[in-house]
Amino acid sequence: MSRTVYLNGEYLPEEEAKVSVFDRGFLFADGVYEVTTVLDGKLIDFDGHAMRLSRSLNELEMKNPISKEDLLEVHRELVARNGIEDGLIYLQVTRGAADRDFAYPKDAEPTIVLFTQAKPGLSTSPQAEVGIKVIGIEDQRWGRRDIKTVQLLYPSMGKMMAKAAGCDDAWLVEDGFVTEGTSNNAYIVKDGVLITRHLGHEILHGITRAAVLRFAREAQMKVEERPFTLKEAQGADEAFITSASTFVMPVVEIDGAAIGTGKPGAVAARLREIYLEESRKAAV
Amino acid sequence: MSRTVYLNGEYLPEEEAKVSVFDRGFLFADGVYEVTTVLDGKLIDFDGHAMRLSRSLNELEMKNPISKEDLLEVHRELVARNGIEDGLIYLQVTRGAADRDFAYPKDAEPTIVLFTQAKPGLSTSPQAEVGIKVIGIEDQRWGRRDIKTVQLLYPSMGKMMAKAAGCDDAWLVEDGFVTEGTSNNAYIVKDGVLITRHLGHEILHGITRAAVLRFAREAQMKVEERPFTLKEAQGADEAFITSASTFVMPVVEIDGAAIGTGKPGAVAARLREIYLEESRKAAV
Repeated sequence: MSRTVYLNGEYLPEEEAKVSVFDRGFLFADGVYEVTTVLDGKLIDFDGHAMRLSRSLNELEMKNPISKEDLLEVHRELVARNGIEDGLIYLQVTRGAADRDFAYPKDAEPTIVLFTQAKPGLSTSPQAEVGIKVIGIEDQRWGRRDIKTVQLLYPSMGKMMAKAAGCDDAWLVEDGFVTEGTSNNAYIVKDGVLITRHLGHEILHGITRAAVLRFAREAQMKVEERPFTLKEAQGADEAFITSASTFVMPVVEIDGAAIGTGKPGAVAARLREIYLEESRKAAV
Repeated sequence: MSRTVYLNGEYLPEEEAKVSVFDRGFLFADGVYEVTTVLDGKLIDFDGHAMRLSRSLNELEMKNPISKEDLLEVHRELVARNGIEDGLIYLQVTRGAADRDFAYPKDAEPTIVLFTQAKPGLSTSPQAEVGIKVIGIEDQRWGRRDIKTVQLLYPSMGKMMAKAAGCDDAWLVEDGFVTEGTSNNAYIVKDGVLITRHLGHEILHGITRAAVLRFAREAQMKVEERPFTLKEAQGADEAFITSASTFVMPVVEIDGAAIGTGKPGAVAARLREIYLEESRKAAV
Protein backbone atom coordinates (compact mmCIF):
# COMPACT_ATOMS: atom_id res chain seq x y z
CA MET A 1 0.00 0.00 0.00
CA SER A 2 1.23 3.43 -0.89
CA ARG A 3 2.13 5.84 1.90
CA THR A 4 0.54 9.23 2.23
CA VAL A 5 3.11 12.01 2.00
CA TYR A 6 2.66 15.65 3.01
CA LEU A 7 3.96 18.15 0.47
CA ASN A 8 3.41 21.91 0.60
CA GLY A 9 -0.01 21.72 2.21
CA GLU A 10 -1.29 18.62 0.44
CA TYR A 11 -1.57 14.99 1.45
CA LEU A 12 -0.58 12.91 -1.58
CA PRO A 13 0.05 9.27 -2.49
CA GLU A 14 3.83 8.85 -2.38
CA GLU A 15 4.00 8.26 -6.16
CA GLU A 16 2.62 11.76 -6.69
CA ALA A 17 4.86 13.50 -4.18
CA LYS A 18 7.26 15.28 -6.50
CA VAL A 19 9.26 18.47 -6.45
CA SER A 20 10.54 20.63 -9.27
CA VAL A 21 13.98 19.80 -10.66
CA PHE A 22 14.65 23.50 -9.94
CA ASP A 23 14.10 22.97 -6.21
CA ARG A 24 17.21 24.18 -4.41
CA GLY A 25 17.09 21.09 -2.24
CA PHE A 26 17.78 19.08 -5.39
CA LEU A 27 20.25 21.46 -7.08
CA PHE A 28 22.22 22.88 -4.12
CA ALA A 29 21.43 20.68 -1.08
CA ASP A 30 19.94 23.94 0.17
CA GLY A 31 17.64 22.35 2.73
CA VAL A 32 17.42 21.06 6.28
CA TYR A 33 15.68 18.11 7.89
CA GLU A 34 14.53 16.44 11.08
CA VAL A 35 13.59 12.86 11.93
CA THR A 36 11.10 12.35 14.75
CA THR A 37 10.46 8.95 16.28
CA VAL A 38 6.97 7.51 16.81
CA LEU A 39 6.42 4.99 19.60
CA ASP A 40 2.96 3.61 20.34
CA GLY A 41 1.59 6.13 17.84
CA LYS A 42 3.01 9.10 19.75
CA LEU A 43 5.79 11.56 18.94
CA ILE A 44 9.05 11.48 20.88
CA ASP A 45 10.53 14.89 21.71
CA PHE A 46 8.53 16.79 19.11
CA ASP A 47 9.42 20.11 20.78
CA GLY A 48 13.13 19.44 20.51
CA HIS A 49 12.91 18.69 16.79
CA ALA A 50 10.70 21.71 16.09
CA MET A 51 13.15 23.93 17.96
CA ARG A 52 16.18 22.55 16.13
CA LEU A 53 14.39 22.95 12.80
CA SER A 54 13.88 26.65 13.59
CA ARG A 55 17.53 26.99 14.50
CA SER A 56 18.73 25.31 11.27
CA LEU A 57 16.45 27.55 9.20
CA ASN A 58 17.63 30.66 11.03
CA GLU A 59 21.29 29.78 10.49
CA LEU A 60 20.61 29.58 6.75
CA GLU A 61 18.35 32.66 6.61
CA MET A 62 15.57 30.41 5.32
CA LYS A 63 11.89 31.04 5.92
CA ASN A 64 9.99 28.66 8.18
CA PRO A 65 6.95 27.67 6.12
CA ILE A 66 4.92 26.28 9.01
CA SER A 67 4.00 27.11 12.61
CA LYS A 68 4.86 24.66 15.35
CA GLU A 69 1.18 23.96 15.95
CA ASP A 70 0.53 23.16 12.30
CA LEU A 71 3.68 21.06 12.15
CA LEU A 72 2.46 18.98 15.07
CA GLU A 73 -0.89 18.58 13.35
CA VAL A 74 0.79 17.36 10.14
CA HIS A 75 2.88 14.86 12.13
CA ARG A 76 -0.21 13.49 13.83
CA GLU A 77 -2.19 13.36 10.60
CA LEU A 78 0.58 11.37 8.91
CA VAL A 79 0.77 8.97 11.86
CA ALA A 80 -2.99 8.45 11.59
CA ARG A 81 -3.23 8.21 7.80
CA ASN A 82 -0.32 5.76 7.58
CA GLY A 83 -1.27 3.78 10.68
CA ILE A 84 2.16 4.19 12.28
CA GLU A 85 2.56 2.51 15.67
CA ASP A 86 6.36 2.53 15.77
CA GLY A 87 8.39 4.35 13.17
CA LEU A 88 9.86 7.60 11.97
CA ILE A 89 8.58 10.85 10.54
CA TYR A 90 10.98 12.54 8.18
CA LEU A 91 10.64 16.28 7.61
CA GLN A 92 12.52 18.39 5.07
CA VAL A 93 12.38 22.10 4.31
CA THR A 94 14.25 23.59 1.35
CA ARG A 95 14.65 27.15 0.10
CA GLY A 96 12.26 26.27 -2.72
CA ALA A 97 12.37 26.32 -6.52
CA ALA A 98 14.00 29.05 -8.58
CA ASP A 99 16.09 29.21 -11.73
CA ARG A 100 19.56 27.96 -10.91
CA ASP A 101 21.85 30.56 -9.31
CA PHE A 102 24.21 30.19 -6.36
CA ALA A 103 22.80 33.36 -4.79
CA TYR A 104 19.63 32.80 -2.76
CA PRO A 105 16.47 33.63 -4.74
CA LYS A 106 14.46 36.60 -3.53
CA ASP A 107 10.99 35.28 -4.16
CA ALA A 108 11.06 31.50 -3.78
CA GLU A 109 8.61 29.86 -1.39
CA PRO A 110 10.11 27.14 0.81
CA THR A 111 9.31 23.53 0.01
CA ILE A 112 8.15 21.38 2.94
CA VAL A 113 7.75 17.63 2.76
CA LEU A 114 7.07 15.01 5.43
CA PHE A 115 6.81 11.25 5.09
CA THR A 116 6.64 8.28 7.41
CA GLN A 117 8.64 5.09 7.71
CA ALA A 118 7.01 2.25 9.64
CA LYS A 119 9.49 0.43 11.89
CA PRO A 120 7.55 -2.21 13.82
CA GLY A 121 9.27 -3.07 17.09
CA LEU A 122 11.66 -0.11 16.79
CA SER A 123 12.19 0.14 20.54
CA THR A 124 12.86 -3.58 20.99
CA SER A 125 15.54 -3.85 18.29
CA PRO A 126 17.48 -7.10 18.78
CA GLN A 127 20.60 -5.16 17.82
CA ALA A 128 20.52 -3.38 21.18
CA GLU A 129 21.08 -6.81 22.79
CA VAL A 130 24.26 -7.51 20.84
CA GLY A 131 25.52 -4.03 20.03
CA ILE A 132 27.06 -2.70 16.83
CA LYS A 133 30.55 -2.67 15.36
CA VAL A 134 32.07 0.53 14.02
CA ILE A 135 35.11 1.57 12.04
CA GLY A 136 36.92 4.88 12.28
CA ILE A 137 37.11 6.99 9.13
CA GLU A 138 38.27 10.51 8.39
CA ASP A 139 35.60 13.16 8.89
CA GLN A 140 35.30 14.75 5.47
CA ARG A 141 32.03 16.62 6.00
CA TRP A 142 31.57 20.36 5.69
CA GLY A 143 32.30 22.58 8.69
CA ARG A 144 28.79 23.38 9.96
CA ARG A 145 27.49 20.01 11.16
CA ASP A 146 25.45 21.82 13.80
CA ILE A 147 23.10 22.84 10.96
CA LYS A 148 21.12 19.75 10.03
CA THR A 149 21.39 20.06 6.25
CA VAL A 150 20.74 17.42 3.61
CA GLN A 151 24.41 17.43 2.60
CA LEU A 152 24.54 13.78 3.60
CA LEU A 153 26.63 12.20 0.88
CA TYR A 154 29.65 11.64 3.08
CA PRO A 155 27.66 10.01 5.90
CA SER A 156 26.19 7.75 3.19
CA MET A 157 29.67 6.93 1.94
CA GLY A 158 30.70 6.24 5.53
CA LYS A 159 27.87 3.72 5.99
CA MET A 160 28.99 1.97 2.81
CA MET A 161 32.63 1.90 3.99
CA ALA A 162 31.45 0.38 7.27
CA LYS A 163 29.42 -2.27 5.45
CA ALA A 164 32.36 -3.09 3.20
CA ALA A 165 34.43 -3.63 6.37
CA GLY A 166 31.78 -5.97 7.82
CA CYS A 167 30.66 -3.35 10.34
CA ASP A 168 27.46 -1.44 11.08
CA ASP A 169 28.57 2.15 11.16
CA ALA A 170 31.51 4.54 11.13
CA TRP A 171 32.84 7.01 13.68
CA LEU A 172 34.23 10.14 12.10
CA VAL A 173 37.67 11.38 13.12
CA GLU A 174 38.95 14.92 12.67
CA ASP A 175 42.38 16.15 13.75
CA GLY A 176 42.78 12.92 15.67
CA PHE A 177 39.55 13.15 17.66
CA VAL A 178 36.18 11.49 17.17
CA THR A 179 33.50 13.98 16.19
CA GLU A 180 30.45 11.68 16.02
CA GLY A 181 28.93 8.74 14.12
CA THR A 182 27.62 9.08 10.56
CA SER A 183 24.10 9.90 11.82
CA ASN A 184 24.42 9.75 15.60
CA ASN A 185 26.44 11.09 18.53
CA ALA A 186 29.28 9.01 20.01
CA TYR A 187 30.03 8.22 23.67
CA ILE A 188 32.44 6.24 25.78
CA VAL A 189 32.32 5.24 29.44
CA LYS A 190 35.51 4.88 31.49
CA ASP A 191 35.67 4.30 35.25
CA GLY A 192 32.05 5.35 35.56
CA VAL A 193 32.51 8.62 33.69
CA LEU A 194 30.42 9.28 30.59
CA ILE A 195 32.46 11.06 27.92
CA THR A 196 31.09 12.65 24.74
CA ARG A 197 32.28 15.45 22.52
CA HIS A 198 31.30 19.00 23.51
CA LEU A 199 28.86 20.94 21.36
CA GLY A 200 30.16 23.19 18.60
CA HIS A 201 30.08 23.48 14.82
CA GLU A 202 31.79 20.09 14.56
CA ILE A 203 28.83 17.93 15.58
CA LEU A 204 25.09 17.73 15.39
CA HIS A 205 23.38 18.99 18.52
CA GLY A 206 21.50 15.76 19.04
CA ILE A 207 18.04 15.93 20.59
CA THR A 208 18.59 12.43 21.97
CA ARG A 209 22.07 13.48 23.13
CA ALA A 210 20.60 16.31 25.22
CA ALA A 211 18.02 14.00 26.78
CA VAL A 212 20.49 11.21 27.54
CA LEU A 213 23.00 13.59 29.15
CA ARG A 214 20.19 15.02 31.28
CA PHE A 215 19.12 11.56 32.40
CA ALA A 216 22.73 10.56 33.10
CA ARG A 217 23.25 13.62 35.30
CA GLU A 218 19.96 13.01 37.08
CA ALA A 219 21.22 9.49 37.77
CA GLN A 220 24.31 11.08 39.43
CA MET A 221 26.67 9.96 36.65
CA LYS A 222 29.72 12.08 36.05
CA VAL A 223 29.60 13.53 32.52
CA GLU A 224 32.57 14.99 30.64
CA GLU A 225 31.87 16.85 27.41
CA ARG A 226 35.23 16.77 25.65
CA PRO A 227 36.90 15.23 22.60
CA PHE A 228 38.31 11.70 22.73
CA THR A 229 40.44 9.65 20.34
CA LEU A 230 39.68 6.27 18.77
CA LYS A 231 42.49 4.87 20.90
CA GLU A 232 40.91 6.16 24.10
CA ALA A 233 37.59 4.72 22.91
CA GLN A 234 39.17 1.31 22.29
CA GLY A 235 40.42 1.32 25.86
CA ALA A 236 37.07 2.36 27.35
CA ASP A 237 34.81 0.16 29.48
CA GLU A 238 31.82 0.85 27.23
CA ALA A 239 30.89 2.73 24.10
CA PHE A 240 27.57 3.65 22.55
CA ILE A 241 25.77 5.96 20.16
CA THR A 242 22.55 7.92 20.45
CA SER A 243 20.11 9.13 17.80
CA ALA A 244 16.37 9.65 17.45
CA SER A 245 15.95 6.28 15.73
CA THR A 246 18.47 4.11 17.61
CA PHE A 247 17.89 5.70 21.06
CA VAL A 248 20.94 4.41 22.98
CA MET A 249 22.77 1.72 21.02
CA PRO A 250 25.80 -0.09 22.46
CA VAL A 251 29.04 -0.20 20.42
CA VAL A 252 30.98 -3.40 21.11
CA GLU A 253 33.82 -3.12 18.63
CA ILE A 254 35.83 -0.21 17.21
CA ASP A 255 38.25 -0.90 14.35
CA GLY A 256 38.39 -4.56 15.33
CA ALA A 257 39.09 -3.98 19.03
CA ALA A 258 36.49 -5.28 21.48
CA ILE A 259 35.22 -2.62 23.88
CA GLY A 260 35.23 -3.75 27.53
CA THR A 261 33.93 -7.30 27.63
CA GLY A 262 32.94 -7.11 23.95
CA LYS A 263 29.31 -7.14 25.03
CA PRO A 264 26.85 -4.28 25.59
CA GLY A 265 27.63 -2.53 28.85
CA ALA A 266 25.48 -1.82 31.88
CA VAL A 267 25.59 1.96 31.55
CA ALA A 268 24.36 1.91 27.95
CA ALA A 269 21.64 -0.60 28.83
CA ARG A 270 20.48 1.48 31.78
CA LEU A 271 20.50 4.77 29.83
CA ARG A 272 18.54 3.14 27.02
CA GLU A 273 15.97 1.92 29.52
CA ILE A 274 15.62 5.34 31.18
CA TYR A 275 15.53 7.13 27.82
CA LEU A 276 12.76 4.93 26.44
CA GLU A 277 10.77 5.10 29.67
CA GLU A 278 10.99 8.88 30.04
CA SER A 279 10.44 9.50 26.32
CA ARG A 280 7.28 7.43 26.27
CA LYS A 281 6.00 9.33 29.29
CA ALA A 282 6.61 12.69 27.61
CA ALA A 283 5.45 11.62 24.12
CA VAL A 284 2.70 13.71 22.50
CA MET B 1 7.88 30.94 -22.71
CA SER B 2 8.51 27.77 -20.81
CA ARG B 3 11.78 25.97 -21.34
CA THR B 4 11.96 22.37 -22.43
CA VAL B 5 13.74 20.21 -19.87
CA TYR B 6 15.13 16.71 -20.36
CA LEU B 7 14.26 14.26 -17.58
CA ASN B 8 14.91 10.53 -17.68
CA GLY B 9 14.39 10.15 -21.40
CA GLU B 10 11.59 12.66 -21.85
CA TYR B 11 11.47 16.24 -23.07
CA LEU B 12 9.06 18.12 -20.82
CA PRO B 13 7.84 21.68 -20.22
CA GLU B 14 9.82 22.93 -17.21
CA GLU B 15 6.67 23.08 -15.03
CA GLU B 16 6.27 19.32 -15.47
CA ALA B 17 9.91 18.43 -14.81
CA LYS B 18 9.63 16.95 -11.33
CA VAL B 19 11.42 14.30 -9.34
CA SER B 20 10.25 12.16 -6.46
CA VAL B 21 10.72 13.55 -2.97
CA PHE B 22 12.48 10.20 -2.38
CA ASP B 23 15.14 11.04 -4.97
CA ARG B 24 18.51 10.76 -3.25
CA GLY B 25 19.56 13.98 -4.93
CA PHE B 26 16.88 15.70 -2.85
CA LEU B 27 17.32 13.73 0.41
CA PHE B 28 21.09 13.14 0.53
CA ALA B 29 22.69 15.45 -2.06
CA ASP B 30 23.67 12.13 -3.59
CA GLY B 31 24.22 13.47 -7.09
CA VAL B 32 26.75 15.08 -9.40
CA TYR B 33 26.51 17.74 -12.07
CA GLU B 34 28.17 19.50 -14.99
CA VAL B 35 27.58 22.85 -16.65
CA THR B 36 28.49 23.15 -20.32
CA THR B 37 28.67 26.48 -22.11
CA VAL B 38 26.97 27.16 -25.44
CA LEU B 39 28.43 29.81 -27.75
CA ASP B 40 26.91 30.48 -31.18
CA GLY B 41 24.69 27.47 -30.61
CA LYS B 42 27.66 25.11 -30.15
CA LEU B 43 28.98 23.25 -27.12
CA ILE B 44 32.27 24.27 -25.53
CA ASP B 45 34.48 21.38 -24.38
CA PHE B 46 31.69 18.80 -24.34
CA ASP B 47 34.26 15.98 -24.15
CA GLY B 48 35.85 17.41 -21.02
CA HIS B 49 32.50 17.65 -19.24
CA ALA B 50 31.43 14.15 -20.31
CA MET B 51 34.74 12.76 -19.06
CA ARG B 52 34.52 14.55 -15.70
CA LEU B 53 30.93 13.36 -15.29
CA SER B 54 32.13 9.76 -15.71
CA ARG B 55 34.86 10.35 -13.17
CA SER B 56 32.47 11.86 -10.59
CA LEU B 57 30.05 8.94 -11.04
CA ASN B 58 32.87 6.39 -10.71
CA GLU B 59 34.16 7.98 -7.52
CA LEU B 60 30.67 7.59 -6.02
CA GLU B 61 30.05 4.10 -7.44
CA MET B 62 27.05 5.52 -9.27
CA LYS B 63 25.72 4.16 -12.57
CA ASN B 64 26.07 6.32 -15.66
CA PRO B 65 22.56 6.38 -17.14
CA ILE B 66 23.58 7.61 -20.59
CA SER B 67 26.24 7.05 -23.24
CA LYS B 68 28.43 9.92 -24.35
CA GLU B 69 26.84 9.87 -27.80
CA ASP B 70 23.31 10.07 -26.40
CA LEU B 71 24.37 12.78 -23.97
CA LEU B 72 25.68 14.87 -26.85
CA GLU B 73 22.42 14.31 -28.70
CA VAL B 74 20.39 15.50 -25.67
CA HIS B 75 22.57 18.59 -25.32
CA ARG B 76 22.06 19.44 -29.00
CA GLU B 77 18.33 18.76 -28.84
CA LEU B 78 17.96 21.11 -25.86
CA VAL B 79 19.96 23.81 -27.64
CA ALA B 80 17.65 23.48 -30.64
CA ARG B 81 14.35 23.21 -28.75
CA ASN B 82 15.17 26.20 -26.53
CA GLY B 83 16.78 28.27 -29.25
CA ILE B 84 19.99 28.79 -27.28
CA GLU B 85 22.63 30.91 -29.03
CA ASP B 86 24.71 31.74 -25.97
CA GLY B 87 24.02 30.12 -22.63
CA LEU B 88 24.53 27.14 -20.37
CA ILE B 89 23.39 23.55 -20.25
CA TYR B 90 23.06 22.16 -16.75
CA LEU B 91 23.23 18.39 -16.28
CA GLN B 92 22.61 16.46 -13.06
CA VAL B 93 22.72 12.74 -12.33
CA THR B 94 21.58 11.35 -8.98
CA ARG B 95 21.54 7.84 -7.53
CA GLY B 96 17.76 7.84 -8.02
CA ALA B 97 14.71 7.38 -5.82
CA ALA B 98 14.46 4.85 -3.00
CA ASP B 99 13.00 4.77 0.49
CA ARG B 100 15.22 6.83 2.74
CA ASP B 101 18.30 5.01 4.03
CA PHE B 102 21.90 6.24 4.31
CA ALA B 103 23.13 3.04 2.63
CA TYR B 104 23.04 3.12 -1.15
CA PRO B 105 19.93 1.39 -2.56
CA LYS B 106 20.53 -1.78 -4.55
CA ASP B 107 17.91 -1.32 -7.22
CA ALA B 108 17.42 2.40 -7.80
CA GLU B 109 17.73 3.72 -11.34
CA PRO B 110 19.74 6.95 -11.66
CA THR B 111 17.87 10.16 -12.31
CA ILE B 112 19.19 12.34 -15.13
CA VAL B 113 18.03 15.87 -15.80
CA LEU B 114 19.29 18.56 -18.16
CA PHE B 115 18.07 22.11 -18.63
CA THR B 116 19.23 25.24 -20.40
CA GLN B 117 19.82 28.81 -19.31
CA ALA B 118 19.93 31.43 -22.06
CA LYS B 119 22.70 33.99 -21.48
CA PRO B 120 22.68 36.36 -24.46
CA GLY B 121 26.08 37.97 -24.97
CA LEU B 122 27.72 35.59 -22.49
CA SER B 123 31.15 35.91 -24.10
CA THR B 124 31.08 39.70 -24.25
CA SER B 125 30.21 40.25 -20.58
CA PRO B 126 30.90 43.90 -19.65
CA GLN B 127 32.17 42.56 -16.31
CA ALA B 128 35.28 41.22 -18.03
CA GLU B 129 36.16 44.85 -18.87
CA VAL B 130 36.07 46.00 -15.25
CA GLY B 131 36.81 42.81 -13.35
CA ILE B 132 35.28 41.46 -10.14
CA LYS B 133 35.92 42.02 -6.45
CA VAL B 134 36.31 39.10 -4.08
CA ILE B 135 36.50 38.53 -0.35
CA GLY B 136 38.38 35.76 1.40
CA ILE B 137 36.33 33.36 3.56
CA GLU B 138 37.11 30.14 5.33
CA ASP B 139 36.70 27.03 3.17
CA GLN B 140 34.07 25.03 5.03
CA ARG B 141 33.21 22.57 2.25
CA TRP B 142 33.53 18.81 2.48
CA GLY B 143 36.85 17.17 1.69
CA ARG B 144 36.24 15.79 -1.82
CA ARG B 145 35.80 18.88 -3.95
CA ASP B 146 37.32 17.01 -6.88
CA ILE B 147 33.97 15.16 -7.12
CA LYS B 148 31.48 17.61 -8.61
CA THR B 149 28.58 16.92 -6.23
CA VAL B 150 25.48 19.02 -5.61
CA GLN B 151 26.59 19.69 -2.02
CA LEU B 152 26.68 23.38 -2.90
CA LEU B 153 25.19 25.04 0.13
CA TYR B 154 28.47 26.51 1.34
CA PRO B 155 29.39 27.99 -2.07
CA SER B 156 25.88 29.53 -2.03
CA MET B 157 26.50 30.95 1.43
CA GLY B 158 29.84 32.26 0.19
CA LYS B 159 28.20 34.15 -2.68
CA MET B 160 25.77 35.71 -0.20
CA MET B 161 28.63 36.71 2.13
CA ALA B 162 30.38 38.31 -0.85
CA LYS B 163 27.23 40.22 -1.82
CA ALA B 164 26.77 41.39 1.75
CA ALA B 165 30.33 42.74 1.63
CA GLY B 166 29.64 44.59 -1.63
CA CYS B 167 31.69 42.11 -3.65
CA ASP B 168 31.04 39.66 -6.47
CA ASP B 169 32.48 36.43 -5.18
CA ALA B 170 34.52 34.75 -2.46
CA TRP B 171 37.86 32.95 -2.49
CA LEU B 172 37.97 30.04 -0.08
CA VAL B 173 40.87 29.71 2.32
CA GLU B 174 41.96 26.50 4.03
CA ASP B 175 44.92 26.19 6.40
CA GLY B 176 46.01 29.65 5.28
CA PHE B 177 45.98 28.94 1.55
CA VAL B 178 43.45 29.77 -1.16
CA THR B 179 41.79 26.65 -2.53
CA GLU B 180 39.55 28.19 -5.21
CA GLY B 181 36.54 30.46 -5.74
CA THR B 182 33.00 29.43 -4.82
CA SER B 183 32.38 28.03 -8.30
CA ASN B 184 35.60 28.68 -10.15
CA ASN B 185 39.38 28.18 -9.98
CA ALA B 186 41.63 30.99 -8.71
CA TYR B 187 44.87 32.35 -10.21
CA ILE B 188 47.43 35.04 -9.64
CA VAL B 189 50.17 36.42 -11.88
CA LYS B 190 53.45 37.72 -10.44
CA ASP B 191 56.49 38.77 -12.46
CA GLY B 192 55.09 37.01 -15.50
CA VAL B 193 54.50 33.70 -13.69
CA LEU B 194 51.00 32.23 -13.63
CA ILE B 195 50.26 30.64 -10.24
CA THR B 196 47.27 28.42 -9.42
CA ARG B 197 46.67 25.71 -6.86
CA HIS B 198 47.75 22.19 -7.80
CA LEU B 199 45.12 19.50 -8.39
CA GLY B 200 44.03 17.29 -5.49
CA HIS B 201 40.94 16.53 -3.44
CA GLU B 202 40.88 20.17 -2.29
CA ILE B 203 39.72 21.74 -5.55
CA LEU B 204 37.54 21.07 -8.55
CA HIS B 205 39.49 19.86 -11.54
CA GLY B 206 38.23 22.64 -13.76
CA ILE B 207 37.74 21.90 -17.45
CA THR B 208 38.39 25.57 -18.18
CA ARG B 209 41.39 25.45 -15.84
CA ALA B 210 42.96 22.63 -17.87
CA ALA B 211 42.38 24.49 -21.15
CA VAL B 212 43.69 27.82 -19.86
CA LEU B 213 46.86 26.26 -18.43
CA ARG B 214 47.44 24.52 -21.74
CA PHE B 215 47.05 27.78 -23.65
CA ALA B 216 49.30 29.60 -21.17
CA ARG B 217 52.05 27.03 -21.62
CA GLU B 218 51.65 27.11 -25.40
CA ALA B 219 52.10 30.89 -25.16
CA GLN B 220 55.44 30.23 -23.35
CA MET B 221 54.16 31.48 -19.98
CA LYS B 222 55.75 30.02 -16.88
CA VAL B 223 53.10 28.18 -14.86
CA GLU B 224 53.44 27.19 -11.20
CA GLU B 225 50.81 24.85 -9.76
CA ARG B 226 51.09 25.46 -6.02
CA PRO B 227 49.11 26.95 -3.13
CA PHE B 228 49.19 30.69 -2.46
CA THR B 229 47.89 32.85 0.38
CA LEU B 230 45.46 35.77 0.23
CA LYS B 231 48.37 38.00 1.18
CA GLU B 232 50.47 36.78 -1.75
CA ALA B 233 47.44 37.32 -3.99
CA GLN B 234 47.01 40.88 -2.73
CA GLY B 235 50.61 41.58 -3.69
CA ALA B 236 50.30 40.00 -7.15
CA ASP B 237 50.39 41.89 -10.45
CA GLU B 238 47.10 40.31 -11.59
CA ALA B 239 44.47 37.90 -10.39
CA PHE B 240 41.64 36.11 -12.16
CA ILE B 241 39.25 33.18 -12.04
CA THR B 242 38.22 30.61 -14.61
CA SER B 243 35.03 28.59 -15.01
CA ALA B 244 32.88 27.24 -17.82
CA SER B 245 30.51 30.20 -17.61
CA THR B 246 32.91 33.08 -16.83
CA PHE B 247 35.79 31.82 -19.05
CA VAL B 248 38.68 33.96 -17.76
CA MET B 249 37.43 36.74 -15.47
CA PRO B 250 39.82 39.35 -13.99
CA VAL B 251 39.81 39.91 -10.22
CA VAL B 252 40.70 43.52 -9.40
CA GLU B 253 40.23 43.58 -5.64
CA ILE B 254 40.74 41.03 -2.84
CA ASP B 255 39.52 41.87 0.66
CA GLY B 256 39.57 45.58 -0.20
CA ALA B 257 43.11 45.58 -1.62
CA ALA B 258 43.49 46.58 -5.26
CA ILE B 259 45.40 44.04 -7.33
CA GLY B 260 48.16 45.54 -9.47
CA THR B 261 46.79 48.71 -11.03
CA GLY B 262 43.28 47.88 -9.78
CA LYS B 263 42.22 47.24 -13.37
CA PRO B 264 42.03 44.00 -15.37
CA GLY B 265 45.51 42.87 -16.33
CA ALA B 266 47.03 42.07 -19.70
CA VAL B 267 47.64 38.38 -18.98
CA ALA B 268 44.01 37.71 -18.00
CA ALA B 269 42.78 39.65 -21.03
CA ARG B 270 45.07 37.74 -23.38
CA LEU B 271 44.17 34.33 -21.89
CA ARG B 272 40.48 35.17 -22.12
CA GLU B 273 40.93 36.06 -25.77
CA ILE B 274 42.86 32.89 -26.58
CA TYR B 275 40.43 30.73 -24.58
CA LEU B 276 37.36 32.09 -26.35
CA GLU B 277 39.01 31.88 -29.76
CA GLU B 278 40.26 28.31 -29.33
CA SER B 279 37.04 27.15 -27.64
CA ARG B 280 34.90 28.45 -30.44
CA LYS B 281 37.13 26.68 -32.97
CA ALA B 282 36.80 23.36 -31.13
CA ALA B 283 33.07 23.74 -30.27
CA VAL B 284 30.77 20.93 -31.40
